[in-house]
Amino acid sequence: MPRVYLAGPDVFREDWRAVSDAKKALCRSYGFDGVFPLDGAIKKQRSKRQFGYAISRANEKLMQSCDLIIANMTPFRGPSMDVGTAFEMGFMRALGKPVLGYSNVKGNLVSRTVAHLGKKAVRRKGAKGVLEDNFGMAIEDFGLADNLMLDGAVHGSGAKVITASSERTRFSDLRGFEQCLKQAKALFGQKSRRRRM
Amino acid sequence: MPRVYLAGPDVFREDWRAVSDAKKALCRSYGFDGVFPLDGAIKKQRSKRQFGYAISRANEKLMQSCDLIIANMTPFRGPSMDVGTAFEMGFMRALGKPVLGYSNVKGNLVSRTVAHLGKKAVRRKGAKGVLEDNFGMAIEDFGLADNLMLDGAVHGSGAKVITASSERTRFSDLRGFEQCLKQAKALFGQKSRRRRM
Repeated sequence: MPRVYLAGPDVFREDWRAVSDAKKALCRSYGFDGVFPLDGAIKKQRSKRQFGYAISRANEKLMQSCDLIIANMTPFRGPSMDVGTAFEMGFMRALGKPVLGYSNVKGNLVSRTVAHLGKKAVRRKGAKGVLEDNFGMAIEDFGLADNLMLDGAVHGSGAKVITASSERTRFSDLRGFEQCLKQAKALFGQKSRRRRM
Repeated sequence: MPRVYLAGPDVFREDWRAVSDAKKALCRSYGFDGVFPLDGAIKKQRSKRQFGYAISRANEKLMQSCDLIIANMTPFRGPSMDVGTAFEMGFMRALGKPVLGYSNVKGNLVSRTVAHLGKKAVRRKGAKGVLEDNFGMAIEDFGLADNLMLDGAVHGSGAKVITASSERTRFSDLRGFEQCLKQAKALFGQKSRRRRM
């Protein structure tokens, strides 16, 4: 069974084990083997920094052992997704493995960023239609769910970023995750058909 | 000369060309060839989404042509760095290329997140010392500059994340960038010495 790396800020939930179990059960029902970042024990380390590095090494190894990634791209403490998960999407993309993702908050990056910045979002002088923040940094506007490198990786994998609003359950709703599994099944079905020919 | 991918939200500045030129000049003075994400033209596309995807493809190709990455990890519209840059750190890490980074805002992730959340940061009940946000998501606390996957990639590359406060010039100060070049020179010097033996 292809192994799916289950990336996302889910690891920060108190009930991460329940989320991990639920995601893994869904994976099995679609013919995949789910791998959660907190699977596998980390040895005791001499400092909390070293412990952090050890988790990073363990997650990199887990990703190398997986065949694809399904990332929880739900906005996390700002207009964009969790940076650790973004790192992991890049990691899997570079390995040539399919990158899929879902977000439980609808809308695109530009609308969320404008909502986040409020009055700090202003029009850039002399540049038609370009919005910028209070640091003079343009607000990326390609009609995508998040930064173009993230949406681009999913698109380049032959999939679509799934977005659906579940504001009240933004970090627990698994409907978007299941849509990703359906896409993954179609992708891997194509692959195995091709292999047989 | 080793090619350095110059990752960061620098691309969102109106004067990105000046930043690109300044970074490239510094690169040359340390024996590196700087490659900016906006180098190279993108063909006209039929929609802005397609244009975003084309930039993503071009950047992935540029990264594959580079030998290392120096990432601007300065916090971007929240307590963490820009997600596009985080993706690129993961991409280069998976290719086994050195990942270096600097941030122009001092302090670690936990202190910045607590400052960002204000009263929304609370102690998790029954879990000694764990802080969480208003969604019940733990605030990662490993004493690192940002998420452990990011700091872990730099540490795993044999380097240190450079942090220095330049609040007023948080997106233009290049002293942290230059410190990264010094580290890169030391890393690549070791490599070429090893190769000669």
